Amino acid sequence: MAHKYVYLFKEGDGTMRELLGGKGANLAEMVRMGLPVPQGFTVSTEACTKFYEDGEKINDEILAQIDASVAATEQIEGKKFGDPKNPLLMAVRSGARASMPGMMDTILNLGLNDEVVAGMIAGNSDPAFERFVYDSYRRFIQMFGGVVMEVSKHDFETIIDDLKTELKKTDDLELNAADLKELVARFKALVKKTTGSDFPSNPVEQLRASVRAVFLSWNNERAHIYRRMHEIPYSWGTAVNVQTMVYGNLNDNSGTGVAFSRDPATGENVLYGEYLINAQGEDVVAGIRTPNPISQLQKEMPEVYQQFADTVAILEKHYKDMQDMEFTIENRKLYMLQTRNGKRTAAAALKIAVDQVAEGTITTDEALLRFDANQLDALLHPQFDPAALKAATPIGQGLAASPGAACGQVVFEAHTAKQWFDAGKTVILVRLETSPDDIEGMNVAKGILTARGGMTSHAAVVARGMGTCCVSGCGDVKIKGNSFELGGNVYNEGDFISLDGSTGKIYAGELATTEAEITGDFDSFMKWADAARTMKVRTNADSPKDTKTAIQFGAEGIGLCRTEHMFFEGDRIKSMRKMIMAKDLEARKAALAELLPYQQQDFTEMFEALEGKPMTIRFLDPPLHEFLPQEEKDIVEIAGEIGVSVEQLKEKIASLHEFNPMMGHRGLRLAVSYPEIAEMQTTAVINAALAVSKNASFEVVPEIMIPLTCETKELKYVKDIVVKVADAIIAASGQSLKYMVGTMIEIPRAALLANEVATEAEFFSFGTNDLTQMTYGFSRDDAGVFLEDYYTTKIFESDPFVRLDQSGVGQLVQMACEKGRAGRPGIKLGICGEHGGDPSSVKFCHNLGLDYVSCSPFRVPIARLAAAQAAIEAAGGEKVVHG
Amino acid sequence: MAHKYVYLFKEGDGTMRELLGGKGANLAEMVRMGLPVPQGFTVSTEACTKFYEDGEKINDEILAQIDASVAATEQIEGKKFGDPKNPLLMAVRSGARASMPGMMDTILNLGLNDEVVAGMIAGNSDPAFERFVYDSYRRFIQMFGGVVMEVSKHDFETIIDDLKTELKKTDDLELNAADLKELVARFKALVKKTTGSDFPSNPVEQLRASVRAVFLSWNNERAHIYRRMHEIPYSWGTAVNVQTMVYGNLNDNSGTGVAFSRDPATGENVLYGEYLINAQGEDVVAGIRTPNPISQLQKEMPEVYQQFADTVAILEKHYKDMQDMEFTIENRKLYMLQTRNGKRTAAAALKIAVDQVAEGTITTDEALLRFDANQLDALLHPQFDPAALKAATPIGQGLAASPGAACGQVVFEAHTAKQWFDAGKTVILVRLETSPDDIEGMNVAKGILTARGGMTSHAAVVARGMGTCCVSGCGDVKIKGNSFELGGNVYNEGDFISLDGSTGKIYAGELATTEAEITGDFDSFMKWADAARTMKVRTNADSPKDTKTAIQFGAEGIGLCRTEHMFFEGDRIKSMRKMIMAKDLEARKAALAELLPYQQQDFTEMFEALEGKPMTIRFLDPPLHEFLPQEEKDIVEIAGEIGVSVEQLKEKIASLHEFNPMMGHRGLRLAVSYPEIAEMQTTAVINAALAVSKNASFEVVPEIMIPLTCETKELKYVKDIVVKVADAIIAASGQSLKYMVGTMIEIPRAALLANEVATEAEFFSFGTNDLTQMTYGFSRDDAGVFLEDYYTTKIFESDPFVRLDQSGVGQLVQMACEKGRAGRPGIKLGICGEHGGDPSSVKFCHNLGLDYVSCSPFRVPIARLAAAQAAIEAAGGEKVVHG
Repeated sequence: MAHKYVYLFKEGDGTMRELLGGKGANLAEMVRMGLPVPQGFTVSTEACTKFYEDGEKINDEILAQIDASVAATEQIEGKKFGDPKNPLLMAVRSGARASMPGMMDTILNLGLNDEVVAGMIAGNSDPAFERFVYDSYRRFIQMFGGVVMEVSKHDFETIIDDLKTELKKTDDLELNAADLKELVARFKALVKKTTGSDFPSNPVEQLRASVRAVFLSWNNERAHIYRRMHEIPYSWGTAVNVQTMVYGNLNDNSGTGVAFSRDPATGENVLYGEYLINAQGEDVVAGIRTPNPISQLQKEMPEVYQQFADTVAILEKHYKDMQDMEFTIENRKLYMLQTRNGKRTAAAALKIAVDQVAEGTITTDEALLRFDANQLDALLHPQFDPAALKAATPIGQGLAASPGAACGQVVFEAHTAKQWFDAGKTVILVRLETSPDDIEGMNVAKGILTARGGMTSHAAVVARGMGTCCVSGCGDVKIKGNSFELGGNVYNEGDFISLDGSTGKIYAGELATTEAEITGDFDSFMKWADAARTMKVRTNADSPKDTKTAIQFGAEGIGLCRTEHMFFEGDRIKSMRKMIMAKDLEARKAALAELLPYQQQDFTEMFEALEGKPMTIRFLDPPLHEFLPQEEKDIVEIAGEIGVSVEQLKEKIASLHEFNPMMGHRGLRLAVSYPEIAEMQTTAVINAALAVSKNASFEVVPEIMIPLTCETKELKYVKDIVVKVADAIIAASGQSLKYMVGTMIEIPRAALLANEVATEAEFFSFGTNDLTQMTYGFSRDDAGVFLEDYYTTKIFESDPFVRLDQSGVGQLVQMACEKGRAGRPGIKLGICGEHGGDPSSVKFCHNLGLDYVSCSPFRVPIARLAAAQAAIEAAGGEKVVHG
Repeated sequence: MAHKYVYLFKEGDGTMRELLGGKGANLAEMVRMGLPVPQGFTVSTEACTKFYEDGEKINDEILAQIDASVAATEQIEGKKFGDPKNPLLMAVRSGARASMPGMMDTILNLGLNDEVVAGMIAGNSDPAFERFVYDSYRRFIQMFGGVVMEVSKHDFETIIDDLKTELKKTDDLELNAADLKELVARFKALVKKTTGSDFPSNPVEQLRASVRAVFLSWNNERAHIYRRMHEIPYSWGTAVNVQTMVYGNLNDNSGTGVAFSRDPATGENVLYGEYLINAQGEDVVAGIRTPNPISQLQKEMPEVYQQFADTVAILEKHYKDMQDMEFTIENRKLYMLQTRNGKRTAAAALKIAVDQVAEGTITTDEALLRFDANQLDALLHPQFDPAALKAATPIGQGLAASPGAACGQVVFEAHTAKQWFDAGKTVILVRLETSPDDIEGMNVAKGILTARGGMTSHAAVVARGMGTCCVSGCGDVKIKGNSFELGGNVYNEGDFISLDGSTGKIYAGELATTEAEITGDFDSFMKWADAARTMKVRTNADSPKDTKTAIQFGAEGIGLCRTEHMFFEGDRIKSMRKMIMAKDLEARKAALAELLPYQQQDFTEMFEALEGKPMTIRFLDPPLHEFLPQEEKDIVEIAGEIGVSVEQLKEKIASLHEFNPMMGHRGLRLAVSYPEIAEMQTTAVINAALAVSKNASFEVVPEIMIPLTCETKELKYVKDIVVKVADAIIAASGQSLKYMVGTMIEIPRAALLANEVATEAEFFSFGTNDLTQMTYGFSRDDAGVFLEDYYTTKIFESDPFVRLDQSGVGQLVQMACEKGRAGRPGIKLGICGEHGGDPSSVKFCHNLGLDYVSCSPFRVPIARLAAAQAAIEAAGGEKVVHG
């Protein structure tokens, strides 16, 4: 039997979203529910996939099924394609599995040609009807010409404008039947002139070309970008819905509109929407005429309004979710053209979920599953005022590195940021890239913009940690001294710009922002999440301040404390530099002794803030050159500060230069070369833990984490140093203290040999940033340049530094989990890469049975929700698709 | 039952090398053969391992077994430990599984104390005997004091010198019994003063301390360095041989010597060696007196000589290999103290092997197995004259990056090298590091010295390819303008230096070299290897010249043609730079069109030279910045050459800068961004193949290799471009041509997903250089700095860039083989990393069933031999240990 590629609406149902797309499945479902839906059929997503497999060709089998479905629809509607007396006219719309509003193409009024137009007019004596028919015809030529025949849409608009000028008319509605007939003629001439072909008159030909055009629109640039933003796989393809036309533009007893079953901005339980009398759907969207609020329909056509309100109630009850619907009224008869779960703001999503649970419509598990975890971001960070945003045009686009909205005055140096901040100004720090040296400036900046660096660059990681808005890797930003160029304009120090860290867009001037607002609904909701999840959520925090923030967000401990960040503030960096410049062991130990009290104090405060929650402390990781200055003037200044000659400092900087520092002298390799660093850090950790646990009612169990292991013997070497120092201090203290020593798994070799590594490591924490770098051979600081080409060519659909690559990197993670458990049964497993805050990656971690994920403080709620969703799904819950 | 840790010689045999060490096993074997061997016992390597496991402590069980073995030896020899009347005296010597001459400690004359000395003298009226006893006593105190009690050996020597000065005597032999007695007293006083303890008089205590000292000497620095050089695992441990003393220094009827059963320098079948009358073994080694050639013994003690010659014949026949022996004559009685397979020069090894096959002593398989494949290097490259080398003191030490010896005048710039070479001078190119830009200078240099870069740095890889001597990564070399500083001296441009690329040593001045010499024996030998092996050996060659060299060395095709090396000569680099600077696709294509004829011509000549042997052509791999200048003056010059402004060129250089270029925009990532590069390269390959195959009697099947795949879709994207271009050219030509498209597996992700990758790749070639970098997270250009610390701490015992890491990187290779075969049954598999020329790695490749290994031309014979050895061993042959 031939494969079925085309389904009549009455053959489908709401569960067939994969095959029929969201729109098609919901149309079929509404038909099943007996709701008023114009009949038609859906060409399936499988047909789209086949179309591309066959080299962009619709095969004969599919064409035959389309023809048969047209015939069946003719039968149901009692009309006929191309019949001048009783013509069937069709709307052709895309409909992917996930909604991609406006991304693909639509063609209305298909089936019209000169003969049909003449026949229709002949069969109806209403003079307004002739106008309506010509209006539909010109719309059809305009849409089909633009979409299928690729005539410039702008050229059609120009013709309309020219005609109105000639006729001295301003509004489209002033154009009468004769005017529109003239428009049709001019449109046809434009098509002929541009394409060399006549506008096709055969409805079958029109339909085939339109289906083909919709399939092709799956592949257009804007669809591709949208998919990438929303993590929609290219392989899904789109379905095509072919539906009998109904006419909101028939007369003044007709109209069209869109509505939501609840307010999508606030979540309030009121019917929300707008409509236009005597219009087709595109008019509402296009915004040429101002639509009326849906409440007005109650006055204009009370019986239609009531029917619509009843239908909405039926639909919301049926789908158990807020609905987003399109409808058309033709001669006071209501038709439903679409329904889907409505997109909503984060605040609305939260309110609707909590309300629906209270109403008893859904369970808490259902409420959790239908919430897009990433959307929580919007509740936790300031956002631009939607009106301001709509009015603004971006001047550039970078990576959406850390969410939130920010506006402030441009500064280019970290120390300037600090000075201006102290003077009460709000600043945006603009840098080629950031380095640990900039930390103080980053800390006070409202937003950060960098020209280089990807989603896991220093700027991105640190900004996310701080909850500061950041746009990274905007290559178009050309910094020259105290100004930068972008989009053809120059912005000087002190100029205002605005950044949207959630979209990566950059704006000139000051855009109004709305502050983050956490309501009581949020707390109830997160409590449900905590009850549902089984995996712990920790945070990446490097300071007592971050620790406190993260605990407020629900962190259950610290999964990654990057101790190097403790070496940058104030005098610490000076001691660190002395350590690096030390000529011998003695001098190095003296410099380290200066650092000890700082580090110990930080640990003490963090242990106190944690009140017994665990803390994983990663020992010094970055290459030492990161602590030394790069620029001539800084070198001169710093040489003086630490008491070495400029030449000595330059020699040291040169000797520490590496071709590929990411794979250089860093991580535990530093501890192998300079065991005294590990000794100092161990002393700080253990002293702090002893001090805090002495008077505390809770137990302190430090987890010391050795970074960058690639070989068991290397880990053992460093662990032996740690254990020796720790045990001596504990013995001398007379207190008892448990501590653990584990490692990061971030080098492929450590994952491959995890069974061996586990004999030394008491826990593993997956450093999936570095693991991704090494597994792909992608430098995260450089990959931005060529990843763009990878998206364009559709080789990649998402950034592996944002979304964990489950097939490659994930294979290593899984292998390391299995081997690690074999090497040390019950070994504690966690993840502390940036993926720890990405919902799909969190789910992967849950399925591998990790004990915890760790992410930046502001992503803790997201991880908590994602972990809950993973647990519910693993137990059989089904994720709800929005829109 | 207790574990047996100690074996009497009569309890062991020659097969027990692992347990008893080489020396112990051979002593036991000689005892079994009935040869005259002083009795004793061996403390096993297991005891050594246990000693370290127990925290450097010899446990009671082992001590008891030692005591019992002493008792058994007393029984056999009829003497007693510590008995003044009939004392048993012992020699304690190390004996690892593989010989490590002079690396560990030895103690002779153990068992002496004041009482025993007195008893011995009392029991012998010969006045010379008293002198002998005191001489033995002072030697014992000196050795034991130095080795076990850690008294400075220099202090003992000073005391001897002082005494001789006091006595106005110059030769040790002039010291009489009284003098030596005085020496004993002074030695004891030194021990007491230095250590605070008396010299131990209890023989049991002496023995235990000596065994312990030998175990500890396994861990000393020089032993560690030696093991690393000779790839001897630390885990093996050493055995300790405790043997009854016999005395070559008893009187003039006594003596001691060493001999080889054939000449170890030439391989000639004559007894070769030397001896000293009235001496202990250490005197021969120490070189204080000049020994006599062994032939003289025939005149001095004909009957002893004859017995020795007979013994040698028996031993060589028994071991079927040239023997290296130590013997002692005590009162005209011969004792064998050691025999082992003798170390020999490469030339000797070849001659002995071929002679022994001719004699019918060994099979060709045995001949192949006993040849150390790495030793072939010495036959293929010039070496320093051994006498000159012995007399010279190195001024520095780098990595032994490319074998051979070279001396010449120092130059610092590639173009200077070329000028001086053209003027008839011999030059050594000294660079901080080399870049592709230096290729012409490297090509004419006799040797290359770099301050930076590891075993797979650019300098090392290119030099090995050219067969040019290279010492890389000598961090002590400080280059300043036209001179460099090393070991406290300054060497200017034009000064002579000498490099030993086989040891990494650097010498001042001109050291005499001997040219490489390939004899007829070599050809016979390599023919046996070719008959024995099943795996093919290809070469890495980038030019027609290298191709011809490699074919002479027996290469069966090219496994890696690095096409980027074709872009550096003369005008080519100019076109390449134009391509990089191109503003748009058209300009880029124009520049590529200039490159096409060069590349096509190279391929044509190489296909011709190969005469149907396969060639794997790797498409452009390095990041583009490598083709642009770095230094100000070059930038100015080149900007003019290619017709862009200096600013434009600088901007491009800045925009191509990467933080970690090894993981940056390179490999097929370039082809994704610039498909036109792959198109040009495909055109060049296919045109050349068509041109050559048109008139040839052989078939040309180009293997196009896409580098750096990490994702199947990315490979497919580039492959589609290649196939499209290739098929069009072939179709247009009217000829038929087969070609393959495959990929390098050098990124961990490609190995992890090899089943998928194999659906697109028609062959895999393992790029184990990059795979090692990514799997370890080691930048090969930077790792040199910290790898030293890894050797010192014994975390690593070999350089993973030289010897394939079988457990980690090898795991990925194995996984990729298995998955690759699952994805494409029968897929062709090869290796083209530098490991392809390393014998142990070649063996690993054979065992994985790879179709071929590919290595630099000069390593082709080594790979052929290693592949033969792997095949023979896999079929049950046993590798013979030398020395």
